[in-house]
Amino acid sequence: MRHSALLTDFYQFTMAYSYWQCGMHNQEAVFHLFFRRNPKHGDCVIASGLETTVAFLNQFHFSDDDIVYLASLKNPVFSADFLAYLKTLRFTGDIDAMPEGSVVFSNEPLLRIKAPLLLCQLLETPLINAINFSSAVTSIAARMRTAAGNDTLFEFGLRRAQGPNGGLTASRAAFLAGFDATSNVLAAQYFDIPVVGTMAHSWVMAFDDELFAFEEYARLNPDNVILLVDTYDTKTGVDHAITVGKKLKAQGRSLKGIRLDSGDLATLSGMVREKLNQAGFSDTRIMVSGDLTEERIMQLKSAGAPIDGWGIGTHLSTAFLQPALDMVYKLGAIQKNAQWHYKLKRSDNRVKTSDPGILQVKRFYDEKHEKKWLRDLIYHVDFGVSSTAINTTEKSHDLLLPVFRNGVLVNAQPTLREARTYCLEQVKQFNASKGEGYLVERESRLMALKQELMGE
Amino acid sequence: MRHSALLTDFYQFTMAYSYWQCGMHNQEAVFHLFFRRNPKHGDCVIASGLETTVAFLNQFHFSDDDIVYLASLKNPVFSADFLAYLKTLRFTGDIDAMPEGSVVFSNEPLLRIKAPLLLCQLLETPLINAINFSSAVTSIAARMRTAAGNDTLFEFGLRRAQGPNGGLTASRAAFLAGFDATSNVLAAQYFDIPVVGTMAHSWVMAFDDELFAFEEYARLNPDNVILLVDTYDTKTGVDHAITVGKKLKAQGRSLKGIRLDSGDLATLSGMVREKLNQAGFSDTRIMVSGDLTEERIMQLKSAGAPIDGWGIGTHLSTAFLQPALDMVYKLGAIQKNAQWHYKLKRSDNRVKTSDPGILQVKRFYDEKHEKKWLRDLIYHVDFGVSSTAINTTEKSHDLLLPVFRNGVLVNAQPTLREARTYCLEQVKQFNASKGEGYLVERESRLMALKQELMGE
Repeated sequence: MRHSALLTDFYQFTMAYSYWQCGMHNQEAVFHLFFRRNPKHGDCVIASGLETTVAFLNQFHFSDDDIVYLASLKNPVFSADFLAYLKTLRFTGDIDAMPEGSVVFSNEPLLRIKAPLLLCQLLETPLINAINFSSAVTSIAARMRTAAGNDTLFEFGLRRAQGPNGGLTASRAAFLAGFDATSNVLAAQYFDIPVVGTMAHSWVMAFDDELFAFEEYARLNPDNVILLVDTYDTKTGVDHAITVGKKLKAQGRSLKGIRLDSGDLATLSGMVREKLNQAGFSDTRIMVSGDLTEERIMQLKSAGAPIDGWGIGTHLSTAFLQPALDMVYKLGAIQKNAQWHYKLKRSDNRVKTSDPGILQVKRFYDEKHEKKWLRDLIYHVDFGVSSTAINTTEKSHDLLLPVFRNGVLVNAQPTLREARTYCLEQVKQFNASKGEGYLVERESRLMALKQELMGE
Repeated sequence: MRHSALLTDFYQFTMAYSYWQCGMHNQEAVFHLFFRRNPKHGDCVIASGLETTVAFLNQFHFSDDDIVYLASLKNPVFSADFLAYLKTLRFTGDIDAMPEGSVVFSNEPLLRIKAPLLLCQLLETPLINAINFSSAVTSIAARMRTAAGNDTLFEFGLRRAQGPNGGLTASRAAFLAGFDATSNVLAAQYFDIPVVGTMAHSWVMAFDDELFAFEEYARLNPDNVILLVDTYDTKTGVDHAITVGKKLKAQGRSLKGIRLDSGDLATLSGMVREKLNQAGFSDTRIMVSGDLTEERIMQLKSAGAPIDGWGIGTHLSTAFLQPALDMVYKLGAIQKNAQWHYKLKRSDNRVKTSDPGILQVKRFYDEKHEKKWLRDLIYHVDFGVSSTAINTTEKSHDLLLPVFRNGVLVNAQPTLREARTYCLEQVKQFNASKGEGYLVERESRLMALKQELMGE
């Protein structure tokens, strides 16, 4: 897909043109991307979407067609000089960001951009678009992975996803968060994710009877026999599957699994397990699918349902319970006459008042148990962290890492599989650390600056 | 964007390969696309997504890269003959569909495809992907249009949308359903939708003080002065806007509007209206934005809040309250030895049992009040509608119209603006007709066939 530089809100152009006209367009500015609130159904967000962001920034430019379109508009009418300026515009700023798969909490910047004001403004919308949804779906996928323990997890959400790249993003996010495979062939090709799939109800319905449909499938796919048994009646379906399983056994092959896609999965999976075991198919795995949610996985697991694998669709691929997180992009500092001026967005709603400055986040660890997180501290890089704020028994490190300097990518980004390993480790550490809620504080001098600016 | 033929679920390929191996791939089949339930927050769905579908089918093919990818897979290993067959595959079927903007009810097919079984199977996922989300967001946009009456409606949802084409689809769907403009520049370019935008909080924050920020904006954009007044404090913000408005008046120009993006919009809009009126700015319009929903629009309207225009983001662009409808694609008929065999998917959950046959929907009108809808009837085209089912005082017409015949587009599709006019008319007729819930029936011989097949 072409990453068009027109993928932004029009007010960014209105403002850009105005900044350009009054000579403010090259003032250096710092903006932060952060979530105002944790997801409704979780204690943290798993950051993702940086790969798309990097790709977008690396090729950011206005094409001739883009300029022709902008030139056609009447309100405002952009001057030829301004359009010529846009034609030469490239990403020339700095980006510091948390790596994909990082656990991040509300109000912590997960990406910081320092760039000319005009550029920062044009990039607001595409950066939020790239990161907000990806992080939402990675967060729900990570919770599903936690709920499912070590069971097999498949992502089946493409059809109900919000468009082709909604589906692609969800498939990638699910794999990043620890899913085992996807049904989405394009995502599998594009991101090198394992791809899976066997049969739909339509396979069974295309034949005159179910048993024959199963026999034909087993004959043509002898090494991957997973039969969908609920097209007409699950009991009969399992009996038919067992009949086919016996023939496979006689050929030295196996009935790998059955899949249930409807009904009361707790009862049905128990019934199916019993029938399979009695017939000597205790190795045949039971897969389930059909409107599964994180909550449903937890319920079925705690009810002891004998389910080996889960295929998750709509609730994952659209982040159904909360299809958008409330990510924002706020100005923290702007340079004028070589001096930084720190800025906040005030609000009667205290949670909506942003933090001023040039921000970084430090995470503290127990020195003896390196994987045990103690707390996070949001601080202003110009102030640093005073030694009194650091306990000598703690270790710490900064969470925002350099990505771009002066428009040049300065650190190779991890592969998807590296990010997946990191993400699984992050979630494990967070689950082991969270205890009574995890503490995120603001460093005292940052807090003092915020109070001072709020008072103005 | 390239519409890749790999944008499908892998089981479609597993099944396709199996059908091909057992010689069933060219059996003609009929599948129907329909919603099993109306949206949770509405009585009907507004169909859309047909334009994307037509574009996808018109260029459906496997590229060399696609074939290379499929050839690399191990489970199953596709034969060279099968891959050569896929390489030649094009869309050769028939499509009948409801035009974009049509009002459609649960269980009514909104698209019917007749094509070789293998092709039908590969197309299931992309057809649902194209139509399900587009229809979800068109439906919510139509309800927001109804809620807002004749007020100005802007779509501002790109940043929180589920990816770039999530945002594009939402911008198009909103315009289709009667929104006036979008902030999404790429959507505006791509679909020729009016584009709007003025300033963000960051404009105000980039200056040392708000009044100067407003003055500069008004100086640089004298013909489009809409000031965002809630960056720091709304009361002061309006006072600053009025100061700027007076200067504009003195120049023979006008303060077009102010925008509120936070806080208690009922109280604030009242306060702002009063201040504006007292200062002689009764023509200055009040725009609001910030987490607006259909419900919030209705509440503010019924509270008499003096709001002239609404900017809607997240709740529209992600169809937040129900981010996916439950659209399905079910086999209705399959040909064998030149005979049609009718099929249904049985379910313990009665609402999930599909309708067999080759389906069409007839809508009945009052002969004297042509815009008054009486009822819809789902029928099997091989059976038709018996004359006893038609009251002589009624008019009727079929809702599924021919789109493709043998892979060729046979009817030019309406432009977006034509579809928008049609959609607004459909919603108006539905709102005038629905009364005590709208009746959708199945024709008696279709019902008898369904009963017969359910009994088997």
